[in-house]
Amino acid sequence: MGLWFTEKQTDNFGITAKINKTYHTEQTEFQKLDMVETAEWGNMLLLDDMVMTTEKDEFVYHEMVAHVPLFTHPNPKEVLVVGGGDGGVIREILKHPSVTKAVLVDIDGKVIEYSKKYLPSIAGKLDDPRVDVRVADGFMHIAESEKAYDVIMVDSTEPVGPAVNLFTKGFYAGIAKALKDDGIFVAQTDNPWFKADLIRQVYADVKEIFPVTRLYTANIPTYPSGLWTFTIGSKIHDPLKVKEDRFFELDTKYYTKQLHHACFVLPKFVEDLTV
Amino acid sequence: MGLWFTEKQTDNFGITAKINKTYHTEQTEFQKLDMVETAEWGNMLLLDDMVMTTEKDEFVYHEMVAHVPLFTHPNPKEVLVVGGGDGGVIREILKHPSVTKAVLVDIDGKVIEYSKKYLPSIAGKLDDPRVDVRVADGFMHIAESEKAYDVIMVDSTEPVGPAVNLFTKGFYAGIAKALKDDGIFVAQTDNPWFKADLIRQVYADVKEIFPVTRLYTANIPTYPSGLWTFTIGSKIHDPLKVKEDRFFELDTKYYTKQLHHACFVLPKFVEDLTV
Repeated sequence: MGLWFTEKQTDNFGITAKINKTYHTEQTEFQKLDMVETAEWGNMLLLDDMVMTTEKDEFVYHEMVAHVPLFTHPNPKEVLVVGGGDGGVIREILKHPSVTKAVLVDIDGKVIEYSKKYLPSIAGKLDDPRVDVRVADGFMHIAESEKAYDVIMVDSTEPVGPAVNLFTKGFYAGIAKALKDDGIFVAQTDNPWFKADLIRQVYADVKEIFPVTRLYTANIPTYPSGLWTFTIGSKIHDPLKVKEDRFFELDTKYYTKQLHHACFVLPKFVEDLTV
Repeated sequence: MGLWFTEKQTDNFGITAKINKTYHTEQTEFQKLDMVETAEWGNMLLLDDMVMTTEKDEFVYHEMVAHVPLFTHPNPKEVLVVGGGDGGVIREILKHPSVTKAVLVDIDGKVIEYSKKYLPSIAGKLDDPRVDVRVADGFMHIAESEKAYDVIMVDSTEPVGPAVNLFTKGFYAGIAKALKDDGIFVAQTDNPWFKADLIRQVYADVKEIFPVTRLYTANIPTYPSGLWTFTIGSKIHDPLKVKEDRFFELDTKYYTKQLHHACFVLPKFVEDLTV
């Protein structure tokens, strides 16, 4: 059989993938980092033994976290990514010609370093002149920002370890302050099969702060349950009311303008988490 | 760690689940059958070492295979299920008051027997007076039927072993003959991450026979990639043109009338399999 990686996505269930090669393994200041080559998914980044991204399916997460809020905003110029050191969200953001500045704040410089080295198709745009990469605490960066961004994207790990502050109501309040008056934020909010309580709590917290709160999903096969959720908080613009002429042709493999609307239509048991 | 079941969904990737108890294991006349209790998903039926259904997530598959074609047909009375010996599709079909007869044809009587014993919440409606359960070859039953059914649902295993005939163009032609003049059929057609060629082939084959051909998806966490596809072939009625007043309240956990439409909006890489 050779070497296989197994992620216990819950105490009683997980995925397993054949490993061709381990490129790098390290306990960074913040988390355990592994970069491996899998036989099924290409190169794969693991943090604290959880799959963060793979070359084969990364497009789903990165397209869906970026394009849904960016097309919802009529003219996004300044965009912040909290986390996301692999650079995939930045790559998608730069497909929007209105964007003049994309700031990436990841607490762990090692994620950026090894993504550049082993995930070039994902991290390859981190050196674009419109991108400002900072190795810093996203929570602090948010606290220090005021009316600075059109769109903020929280591309964090699970709510354990360094990301635990990024799932608190105080953080969402800080995001509201850091956004301009018509700003929008989106956060990855895990899966409804194993983390229903988390989704319900985040949705309720965001709803207390943002006039427009929406949940949408995408299929990510290497993430727990294959069904991932994203929560949007918006001050004015509603993702469900984007006008036809706002969309333009984009080179994508998952996102389409039809899916922009359809991804908000939830299975009943997921819809029930939002009421 | 104890006992864990691992399904290799491809040569290089799979899922793994903690097993509390093995209720039954048998090589039937047609396939290997295992009934186990898992810690995460409740009782689970395996055929040839592949997950067929689990108590916890079965509602997705069963609701989505049944309600999409049943609401598309204006007045479904006689319905056939090929395969589906666990009884879950039958349970959903019986929620439609227009249905007077639901025929189940599964080649393997052992699947029916052990589902009744260990999956009562799924198989519990197989004894309903409207249901006609036959242990027989679905391929032959189709070949012998003419203008007999309003809706036919193919709830088969993967296209290996006993189900291999159920993924052929000849079978779809037989289904067209077995359906009434405004009949509809649906088949489970695997996942787009690992079986893209199969989906493309089935879609093309069905399209040559049925005027209306459509692909839709649902999230099934215990199936490969978590993203499952279903292919519809219809003689007249279009699932995308179901009128608002056709829908009625249904006790479901996944299907909604909004999702009836949204499930046909495909990720771009899946949409590309249909053109």
